[in-house]
Amino acid sequence: MAPSSSNKSSVLPTGGGAALMDPSDTLVLLLDHQSGLFQTVKDIPVADLRRNVEMIAKLCTLLNIPVVTTASEPSGSNGPLMPEIHQYAPHAVYVPRKGEVNAWDNADFVAHVESTGRKTLVMAGVWTSVCVMFPALDARVAGYDVFAVIDASGDPSEMVSRTSLARFVQGGVKPTSTNALLSELHRTWARPEAASLAQLYGLVAPNYAAVMESYQRAQEAVKKAV
Amino acid sequence: MAPSSSNKSSVLPTGGGAALMDPSDTLVLLLDHQSGLFQTVKDIPVADLRRNVEMIAKLCTLLNIPVVTTASEPSGSNGPLMPEIHQYAPHAVYVPRKGEVNAWDNADFVAHVESTGRKTLVMAGVWTSVCVMFPALDARVAGYDVFAVIDASGDPSEMVSRTSLARFVQGGVKPTSTNALLSELHRTWARPEAASLAQLYGLVAPNYAAVMESYQRAQEAVKKAV
Amino acid sequence: MAPSSSNKSSVLPTGGGAALMDPSDTLVLLLDHQSGLFQTVKDIPVADLRRNVEMIAKLCTLLNIPVVTTASEPSGSNGPLMPEIHQYAPHAVYVPRKGEVNAWDNADFVAHVESTGRKTLVMAGVWTSVCVMFPALDARVAGYDVFAVIDASGDPSEMVSRTSLARFVQGGVKPTSTNALLSELHRTWARPEAASLAQLYGLVAPNYAAVMESYQRAQEAVKKAV
Amino acid sequence: MAPSSSNKSSVLPTGGGAALMDPSDTLVLLLDHQSGLFQTVKDIPVADLRRNVEMIAKLCTLLNIPVVTTASEPSGSNGPLMPEIHQYAPHAVYVPRKGEVNAWDNADFVAHVESTGRKTLVMAGVWTSVCVMFPALDARVAGYDVFAVIDASGDPSEMVSRTSLARFVQGGVKPTSTNALLSELHRTWARPEAASLAQLYGLVAPNYAAVMESYQRAQEAVKKAV
Amino acid sequence: MAPSSSNKSSVLPTGGGAALMDPSDTLVLLLDHQSGLFQTVKDIPVADLRRNVEMIAKLCTLLNIPVVTTASEPSGSNGPLMPEIHQYAPHAVYVPRKGEVNAWDNADFVAHVESTGRKTLVMAGVWTSVCVMFPALDARVAGYDVFAVIDASGDPSEMVSRTSLARFVQGGVKPTSTNALLSELHRTWARPEAASLAQLYGLVAPNYAAVMESYQRAQEAVKKAV
Amino acid sequence: MAPSSSNKSSVLPTGGGAALMDPSDTLVLLLDHQSGLFQTVKDIPVADLRRNVEMIAKLCTLLNIPVVTTASEPSGSNGPLMPEIHQYAPHAVYVPRKGEVNAWDNADFVAHVESTGRKTLVMAGVWTSVCVMFPALDARVAGYDVFAVIDASGDPSEMVSRTSLARFVQGGVKPTSTNALLSELHRTWARPEAASLAQLYGLVAPNYAAVMESYQRAQEAVKKAV
Amino acid sequence: MAPSSSNKSSVLPTGGGAALMDPSDTLVLLLDHQSGLFQTVKDIPVADLRRNVEMIAKLCTLLNIPVVTTASEPSGSNGPLMPEIHQYAPHAVYVPRKGEVNAWDNADFVAHVESTGRKTLVMAGVWTSVCVMFPALDARVAGYDVFAVIDASGDPSEMVSRTSLARFVQGGVKPTSTNALLSELHRTWARPEAASLAQLYGLVAPNYAAVMESYQRAQEAVKKAV
Amino acid sequence: MAPSSSNKSSVLPTGGGAALMDPSDTLVLLLDHQSGLFQTVKDIPVADLRRNVEMIAKLCTLLNIPVVTTASEPSGSNGPLMPEIHQYAPHAVYVPRKGEVNAWDNADFVAHVESTGRKTLVMAGVWTSVCVMFPALDARVAGYDVFAVIDASGDPSEMVSRTSLARFVQGGVKPTSTNALLSELHRTWARPEAASLAQLYGLVAPNYAAVMESYQRAQEAVKKAV
Repeated sequence: MAPSSSNKSSVLPTGGGAALMDPSDTLVLLLDHQSGLFQTVKDIPVADLRRNVEMIAKLCTLLNIPVVTTASEPSGSNGPLMPEIHQYAPHAVYVPRKGEVNAWDNADFVAHVESTGRKTLVMAGVWTSVCVMFPALDARVAGYDVFAVIDASGDPSEMVSRTSLARFVQGGVKPTSTNALLSELHRTWARPEAASLAQLYGLVAPNYAAVMESYQRAQEAVKKAV
Repeated sequence: MAPSSSNKSSVLPTGGGAALMDPSDTLVLLLDHQSGLFQTVKDIPVADLRRNVEMIAKLCTLLNIPVVTTASEPSGSNGPLMPEIHQYAPHAVYVPRKGEVNAWDNADFVAHVESTGRKTLVMAGVWTSVCVMFPALDARVAGYDVFAVIDASGDPSEMVSRTSLARFVQGGVKPTSTNALLSELHRTWARPEAASLAQLYGLVAPNYAAVMESYQRAQEAVKKAV
Repeated sequence: MAPSSSNKSSVLPTGGGAALMDPSDTLVLLLDHQSGLFQTVKDIPVADLRRNVEMIAKLCTLLNIPVVTTASEPSGSNGPLMPEIHQYAPHAVYVPRKGEVNAWDNADFVAHVESTGRKTLVMAGVWTSVCVMFPALDARVAGYDVFAVIDASGDPSEMVSRTSLARFVQGGVKPTSTNALLSELHRTWARPEAASLAQLYGLVAPNYAAVMESYQRAQEAVKKAV
Repeated sequence: MAPSSSNKSSVLPTGGGAALMDPSDTLVLLLDHQSGLFQTVKDIPVADLRRNVEMIAKLCTLLNIPVVTTASEPSGSNGPLMPEIHQYAPHAVYVPRKGEVNAWDNADFVAHVESTGRKTLVMAGVWTSVCVMFPALDARVAGYDVFAVIDASGDPSEMVSRTSLARFVQGGVKPTSTNALLSELHRTWARPEAASLAQLYGLVAPNYAAVMESYQRAQEAVKKAV
Repeated sequence: MAPSSSNKSSVLPTGGGAALMDPSDTLVLLLDHQSGLFQTVKDIPVADLRRNVEMIAKLCTLLNIPVVTTASEPSGSNGPLMPEIHQYAPHAVYVPRKGEVNAWDNADFVAHVESTGRKTLVMAGVWTSVCVMFPALDARVAGYDVFAVIDASGDPSEMVSRTSLARFVQGGVKPTSTNALLSELHRTWARPEAASLAQLYGLVAPNYAAVMESYQRAQEAVKKAV
Repeated sequence: MAPSSSNKSSVLPTGGGAALMDPSDTLVLLLDHQSGLFQTVKDIPVADLRRNVEMIAKLCTLLNIPVVTTASEPSGSNGPLMPEIHQYAPHAVYVPRKGEVNAWDNADFVAHVESTGRKTLVMAGVWTSVCVMFPALDARVAGYDVFAVIDASGDPSEMVSRTSLARFVQGGVKPTSTNALLSELHRTWARPEAASLAQLYGLVAPNYAAVMESYQRAQEAVKKAV
Repeated sequence: MAPSSSNKSSVLPTGGGAALMDPSDTLVLLLDHQSGLFQTVKDIPVADLRRNVEMIAKLCTLLNIPVVTTASEPSGSNGPLMPEIHQYAPHAVYVPRKGEVNAWDNADFVAHVESTGRKTLVMAGVWTSVCVMFPALDARVAGYDVFAVIDASGDPSEMVSRTSLARFVQGGVKPTSTNALLSELHRTWARPEAASLAQLYGLVAPNYAAVMESYQRAQEAVKKAV
Repeated sequence: MAPSSSNKSSVLPTGGGAALMDPSDTLVLLLDHQSGLFQTVKDIPVADLRRNVEMIAKLCTLLNIPVVTTASEPSGSNGPLMPEIHQYAPHAVYVPRKGEVNAWDNADFVAHVESTGRKTLVMAGVWTSVCVMFPALDARVAGYDVFAVIDASGDPSEMVSRTSLARFVQGGVKPTSTNALLSELHRTWARPEAASLAQLYGLVAPNYAAVMESYQRAQEAVKKAV
């Protein structure tokens, strides 16, 4: 069951930001992040890809954003879904498919999306050019506002990767990145989850984890001296 | 002779996918994949390029998609067409040209395309920026829905390659990749050609062939143990 | 306080250039160029990024273009703003925020922008995909003509960087570069600031500094000989 | 004086190609290809850049396409125009500027363009982001059909280069490449200039020169044997 | 206190391998893996660097290899040691320095190394060219067999990185990698720690983690079917 | 059983070449080319790696060079050996191991190598830094002349790859490449296998296959004309 | 006049470090860092190269290391020496040459080197492969201990750069980097110049400057709070 | 016939340079620079490779250095030698082979080398790893001082290229580059060929040609003004 749509945080700015996504209207779709397919990804190291997806799972749990997962035959050679997703987003709903490459071709999947009432779809998956592209284009035609998280997805070559980016833009799908998704969903540090959010920045930008470690130690050094 | 247009597979999903290409309306045009021109391609290794084109030939045969080939003077220094195309797609029709760089400038070529009655044209060739770009832009103006398969084509530099991608998008031509074309044409694994299709994924993503080898051996090991 | 809008240089060409930015209508917004965030930038070396921002600060001072800076909690781990900005653009106005990631979510910031009466906003910052993207998209919706200076900004990976570029274009934000901004704002060498402007070209293109050194020495050699 | 516009070759295909440039309506503008600026180009090796510009000069002479050159103060540190242009395109017209960065800000330049009566402008220059971008955007606003030849131009970094490409597309300027320009202008090998054109392909794709050398020797070997 | 040298595993092959390191004679030195220095590393992503160092810590604990850490003023701007080392190798001994850049210039450090009686030193640290290079060269002169683990270390540029590699070889220091260290220390899968070792391969080669996930699921699928 | 050592071709040059390998003294060892390990290789595309190994298998069959293969537990997650080896080199001898990472730690393996009486060992495998490095260093110590075929092997990163190359040189192992091995083993075109050898060049350099296709067509064109 | 050799700092560690350079025996030779030659450098950005050389000049002044500069005809097209050297190292001695490419072919230059009595020569220059390589190899033959600072030098391509590195090692010249030179010459932070030295680290690793900025602000924040 | 060995220029420095090559003892061997093989070169663009070889041909003519060329069956698919060599070095001697891959396996070739009496051999060719490597290693064993000009040679991949470099160094062959060869052979600008030599620098470093153009124009501007 997806979280209720009453999760719109009262801390969000009220005046600005009309162009950005509204967390209370957002549904995250994680498509075919499977171990066998990971071996074919060549536009992002698999460790980075998994860490980005892990961040999205944690973020959705922290901010109460509903998540849907799906996979094309996880007992076949494509392999199982990466376990981190359901581990860190226990509220995620898994929708099995019946062989369709395009999740949007699966009636159950579309029905589930519709049942959430949310019109902003954030998609990521492997391959970008297929498992994200096909439902993204179809959802766009169906009237949804669609975002593709490029670096939480993967394609079999750099050339395919830049081709996918171009096709998304041409089809009216908004390309974004994991770090932008994080910032766009929380929007302000003046909220109770701030400390947990800061940890997530260390996942999308590992150098930031070291920045925080240095910062803390620098301040401890002064405090000890005082 | 091109295959009849009655090849629309009954296994295709009926509800979704309005944004994707319809295999029964699709015609594949393979333009100037010639050995001499291959030497000038610098945005993709020639082994990858040929393997991608080979995949398209096999896919079209498997799914009964009509194919047209053409070449600019194959007895000249541009060299012969790569033989794999007609080897793996014996139903492909070769249309000779009379010196025109742009296949769409050749009346026979355009007439042949029109004779198929198909309105979705999937193009690949060498150079992307010329042999694909020119007929793609012209076909777009002529009202066709046109796809350019970027990694089954080749350009003389990375800089030219990204320039071509931008010009395609600007001209309303849809950029795609060989792996996406494969998925977009078969659409579902719930069809009799599934095993043959799986082999084709090993061509567009060689790591996938190793995934399948590992999978089979892992299962054999259990079966022996049992 | 922002400079008055009476700074339209009389030396500017009057006939042409309707497509380019009008310096007298331009406001530069430098967003979150902070030492901690710099460590996460991976699409441009930090030395180049800072030199580009330094150039913008100097240019705005030279041509009397108003500048606004802002930062997300400079006493936190994100660190202080790079000091070069206010050092070289002492007229820059700093607007603090109250935790908002998106500067456009901060009422003071938007009010300050509106108070300048200028409708052409030139933005740069770290991250490009967040600190520039969010206010850029919002400002676009609010009717401003918005430019994003890509190489005076930074993103956490090459993949994110090219995703940001695509999203800007899709959202109607004009992407530009530091060297183009320099040329677009001064427009002609036939103005009293020419010598100072030449020095700035050595910042956006360090090889140009060597070009000028060689040029001067070559001429001195002749003069001595004469 | 520009060549007369009566150079429309009768060998050109008459039926197709509506989307492509018409040589009889085309004017080539080569902007600021100066030795000092070349040192700042980082998105293409200077040898490749010059060879591409040399090809354009030779092509325009061969096909009787008018050419205009201009430079920003060639006695200053930007240095002289590369001599190959006027050497290989003796019909090119040089229009001096009075300090304007943007050639379109110079009344003489615009007047000369207008005097040719041609509405398709092919531009190349250094920097792409400035010397090509500014007049391209202005000419677009003025109603011209504008092409920017990306690899006969140069920018100070890869990041600036891809930014320029995006801004061209956004502004309605068509990006193209030197090899595509060559093919698009001659359009067919069934013309008397065929042998000379073949030589030009060896400039835009140096491997092609070796292809032709191998081809000739292979045939000579047979002829000797016979 | 370092572990006793009686840790030579009886499972090790006895006949061969004379050229490889002997685990019972090996001491691991982790030098200056500090959060502030990490920001300057440009030849390996910091996430990969930390994961490799984490693997070494875990490996040494698993195989009972002694570890020494040291840092140059962890309360200063260089920042604290990455906490993973002592977290995963609680037996590691930290030796503080008195400002010396080169750990071998610190008498306590050298004395501690000597006290272990081990003559094979495996070093990693940041920067490779300094914090690893200096003690490595000195230890080599002092008669030790020295290994530098290149990808558990970091340098400020690719150019510096390849320079360091050359200087190591010239100075008789043996360059190695984290994955090779793992294999060279455990040497055989026929030992009780095999399952734990397999997990470590997923750290040095993240794709291997996915290989194991696919393998397990493939076998489970058969078992369920049986 | 390995081929007899009487395969020294009488066509080999007799005067020169003392520095090169002697085919009649050469033994090829192919180590752990397994499907699971292939997924971790990042310094060469897996398609290129497999094609190079396939070439070696075919070459050894053609020139009667003995081949030994081995694998670390092919029923485990490392996966099966790539089938091309034994397919194209049916004379290859497979020596199973008992868990040793280093093949030289396995007595059967060493005994088999010694039984051939050959002293020049050509090794390739995955990983280069482990499965090739360890036996290579040990064999060197044991007095063999050892070659490591870098591009018929694979390592988990570019950084590891260049580290391996340095360690080979330092340890007296001669680094070579698949194309060099091909040329060094056949040494002259004046031998009966020339036509078959030419085909193998198309595997180590795919552009060469296109060179041969162009050459043949160029000559056919003349012959038809004559 | 070169500084006296009595500059051996008493703060240096006395026990260790026999393998490292002795500052009191070190002479720095900066060869042909000229503006015209800078344009031909392609293995390092010219801004980085100049910043590294600037660091060396400042370091030598701070630690009283003698410096010699030389140039091949600075009034010719090679251009003047970069002015930063003599600006930041006013004690540097300029030795003119009489047309020799190799400074070691100039008797005055060699005489000056000999007059310092120092036997450790640290060389940097443009081109690495020529202006550094030639005197380095000659000085090695003459019995000097020679270091080549690779990233304070420049070569016309990446390929030439890695060739130079190999030739240095082969010829017994020790390759090093600017950051290593800095650390190797000062050796300990327990010396009066520590604060000035810290600034120099911000030149060889610009991210380190940001690390220091963050550190200072983090501590100020605590102090204010206290 | 090779030039006489009396070409030792009296302008050469007499005191220094013992480590460098002696032009009067130098023989240049250009091996298999054939059009068909050029298509397989992937470590250097073919235009750069040919320009470098052209430079060597011109240099040898200018400085009277003997040159030998050879090719493996130029009527076969490997194609003809690039014509620039004999065009610019008419004194070059072509030695045909009888199918040997390794020129040193050909008695005529070795005899010709010996007949020159020169002991310093400078080799370049395609492939580096074969056509240069094999005779280089053999000549080294035969007592020659051997240089391999890496960037006047070519290999089929970057990986092979760096492998070749390592094998050269290991075998005692000195790696060098075209620009270094130019400088090492002429050694001083104080010789009558200075102006011609300057032109050659524009070939090995195309940016230098622009440096000279700027220099000349800068001086002309002053002279006109005076």
